[in-house]
Amino acid sequence: MTDWPHSYAPRAARIAASEIRELFSLLDRPDIVTFAGGIPDPKLFPTEEIADACRRILADPAKASQALQYSLSEGYIPLREWLAGHMGKLGVACGPDNILITNGAQQALDFLGKLFIAPGDTVLVARPTYLGALQAFNAYEPLFDALPGPGHNRTPASYRGNGRHPPKLGYAMPDFQNPTGLSLTKNERLALLDAADALDFPLIEDIAYETLRYDGAPIPSLAALATARAGGVEKSKVIACGTFSKSIAPALRVGWIVAPQELIRKLVLVKQSSDLNTSCFTQMIACEVAATIYDRHTERIRVAYRERRDAMLKALAAHMPKGVQWTKPEGGMFVWVTFPDSIDGAAFLRRAIEEAQVAFVPGEAFFADRSGRNTARFGFTLNDPATIEEGIRRLGALLRSD
Amino acid sequence: MTDWPHSYAPRAARIAASEIRELFSLLDRPDIVTFAGGIPDPKLFPTEEIADACRRILADPAKASQALQYSLSEGYIPLREWLAGHMGKLGVACGPDNILITNGAQQALDFLGKLFIAPGDTVLVARPTYLGALQAFNAYEPLFDALPGPGHNRTPASYRGNGRHPPKLGYAMPDFQNPTGLSLTKNERLALLDAADALDFPLIEDIAYETLRYDGAPIPSLAALATARAGGVEKSKVIACGTFSKSIAPALRVGWIVAPQELIRKLVLVKQSSDLNTSCFTQMIACEVAATIYDRHTERIRVAYRERRDAMLKALAAHMPKGVQWTKPEGGMFVWVTFPDSIDGAAFLRRAIEEAQVAFVPGEAFFADRSGRNTARFGFTLNDPATIEEGIRRLGALLRSD
Repeated sequence: MTDWPHSYAPRAARIAASEIRELFSLLDRPDIVTFAGGIPDPKLFPTEEIADACRRILADPAKASQALQYSLSEGYIPLREWLAGHMGKLGVACGPDNILITNGAQQALDFLGKLFIAPGDTVLVARPTYLGALQAFNAYEPLFDALPGPGHNRTPASYRGNGRHPPKLGYAMPDFQNPTGLSLTKNERLALLDAADALDFPLIEDIAYETLRYDGAPIPSLAALATARAGGVEKSKVIACGTFSKSIAPALRVGWIVAPQELIRKLVLVKQSSDLNTSCFTQMIACEVAATIYDRHTERIRVAYRERRDAMLKALAAHMPKGVQWTKPEGGMFVWVTFPDSIDGAAFLRRAIEEAQVAFVPGEAFFADRSGRNTARFGFTLNDPATIEEGIRRLGALLRSD
Repeated sequence: MTDWPHSYAPRAARIAASEIRELFSLLDRPDIVTFAGGIPDPKLFPTEEIADACRRILADPAKASQALQYSLSEGYIPLREWLAGHMGKLGVACGPDNILITNGAQQALDFLGKLFIAPGDTVLVARPTYLGALQAFNAYEPLFDALPGPGHNRTPASYRGNGRHPPKLGYAMPDFQNPTGLSLTKNERLALLDAADALDFPLIEDIAYETLRYDGAPIPSLAALATARAGGVEKSKVIACGTFSKSIAPALRVGWIVAPQELIRKLVLVKQSSDLNTSCFTQMIACEVAATIYDRHTERIRVAYRERRDAMLKALAAHMPKGVQWTKPEGGMFVWVTFPDSIDGAAFLRRAIEEAQVAFVPGEAFFADRSGRNTARFGFTLNDPATIEEGIRRLGALLRSD
C-alpha cells in the first residue's frame, strides 16, 4: 500500500471529516425526523422559473454560446450589476467592480482564508460559529480566538506586550447565525467594528441568511455600518460574503464577495488559479431568476419558514423538560438548544436516532475549541409543522425518560 | 486607503496575473484574428442536447429537487459510475469510489496542490507546462524543477547528498500538451513512471485533451501504465485529472480526479471545505449528455479541429520565414512556435496586434523559470481554415518585413 499521508503537506492534518456532512446520509432514511440539515426545502425552489431561464438562455444562440463557454473570472457582468443594486438596498453602495462571483459563500471563505491566513495567524470567530468557516480557514492553519464583545479594549500593543501577534482576520455572521440563530445587536456590531479598527484586521461578514428575517426590524449589516463610517466601500475593511443558496437554490453554486476594488482584483487571481470561473450558465440563470422574482420568491420562503420556526418554538416550550434552554431566533434556519451539563450532545444524538428516530447536529463541531458538548443545532426548514411537533415531542420524551 | 497587501499571507505574492487571461479581452475585438484562446469553439457545443437534459431534469419533480439542492461532496453517483466506465475504456479499471468530481480540471490541480504541497517543496513540471498548473500550485509556494526524461538516474539519496529534498510531486500532460501540442512517447511515459517510483512522488496526469486525437495510434496514459504495473488503481501513484470542458462545454464546470480510494476520501474533505460540492444540476446535465452522445459528439469535434490543425500547419509551411520552427501535433488545440532567438514573443505580440491584427500567447508564461522568450502558443480551435490561413499569412509577412 502507498503511504499517502506521508506525502501530504502539514495542512492536511487540519482538513478533517465534518460531523454535519456525515449526517447527510441519514437524510434519506424515511423513518427519521431530521433537524440535522441546514439546507433549504427543495419544495420551495423556483423550479419553473429556473427551467424558463434555461430555455430562454439556451434558445438564443448568442446567449447559449456565452453561457456554455469559459467566462470572466470576476463573474457575469449583468449579475454583478444586479448584486451591486441589491447590496445598495442593504446600505452598501457599490459597483460591479466591487463584486467577485464565487461558488457559493463557502468558496468565498476559502478564498479569503487563502489570501489572508498564514500558518499560526490568529483568526477571530464567534463561539460557536459556522462550521464551514472553521473548515475553510483550517486548511490555512490558523489559531482561533474569540471575537471581542462590547467593552473590549485590546490594542496591537497589548497583544505584543503579551508576546502574541495581533489577530489577522475576523469572521462574523451577524444575522440569524448558523448555528445559534441569534443576531448581533446594532451596539454589538458597532463594538465589533471598533475592535476591527483598533486591532486593524479585515472583518469578514457572512450574510448568507440576511434575507430570511421573519420578525423584528432589520439591523444594518457590518458592511453597511462600516461603509457609512469609512465614507464608502472602498475604504471599508468589512468584506461581505453572500449567496443565492438560501434564497434561490444551492446548486446554482453562486455566491459573491463585496469588497474594495483592490481586494477584488487580487481575489480574481485567486479565483483564476483555483477553478478559472464559476459556471456562466448558472450565473445567467441566477441573474434572470433574481431580476424577475427575488423579492416575491424570498417572501414566499419567509412565510413558510416562519411557520416552521413558530412550530419548533411552540413544540420546545410544550415538550422540553426543565433545564433545557433554547434560542428564539428572528430569522434563519436554526434554533440552538442547550441541554443540562450532564448531557453529551453526540451521545444523545446516537440515542435519539436509535430510540426516537430523530436527528440533529451536536453542537461541539461549531466550537473552534470543541467546547459546547451539551449543545445542539436544530434546523426547522425541512419539515412541516406537524412533523416538527412530533420530532420535538419524541426528543422531549426521551430526555424525560432518563 | 487601507494597506491590503500588508494583511495578505506570504503566498499572496505568488498569486499573480496571467498573461493568457488578460488577453481574453482581445477575443471580443472583431478585427483581430486571435490564436490566443485555448478554448473550444462554441459553435460545436451540444446546445440542443444540453437544453433537452435541462428540460428532462427540471420537469421531473424528484430529479429537480435533487438537481437544485446541496449534494454529495464526492459528486453525483451516476456520473461517477459513467466516468468509471469511461476510465475503464482508457485502461484504468476503477469504480465510482475512485472518483471525485471537481469544477473542471483546474480545481483538481488546486486541490492536489492544497493536499500535497508545503512551502519550499519541489514540484516537477515540464518546460514548458500548462500555465494553469503553475498558477494552481504557486498558491502553495513550491519550488519548480524539470520533470526527468529517459536516462534519469536520481534517487532520494542523491538529492539528499546534494543537500536538497527529493521532489514532492510531479505533473505531466502526456497527450497533446498545453502549450506545445506534443505527446510523450510510450517510452517517455515509462521512464517518467520509473522516476516517480524511484523518487517516490505522486504523479499527476492531466488528461484534459485526451479525447482530441486526430491522427496516429493512442498511447496508453500514465494512469493506465501505472495501474497495469501496480496491479490495480488502488496501488498506483498516478492521479489522473479529466474534464468535460473540451468535450462537452466548459461552463458545466465538471472535471474529475481518479485515484486510490484513500486519497479520494481525503480529497472529498478538501472539496467540502473549499466549496461543499460541484453543482448537482450541471453534473446531472453532464451525465445525461455524456451517456447519450459522448462518442459521436467528440468525433464531430475531432473532425472540425483536425481540419483547422491541418490548415494551420499548411499555412505555417507556406508563410513562415526560415528560422521559425513549430510542432506538428497529433491532437489537442495548439501548435507551439519557436522564433529565431532574436525575437521576443511578448514584443512581437504587441507588434502583431498593432500591425497585423493577429493575437497569440507568448511562450514565456508557460515556463516556471520564465525562459522561452522566443516561443509562442498558437491555438487553432476557434477559427475556420480560411481565417487561420489569413492570420498566419499576416504574421509571416510581419516577420519577413524585419
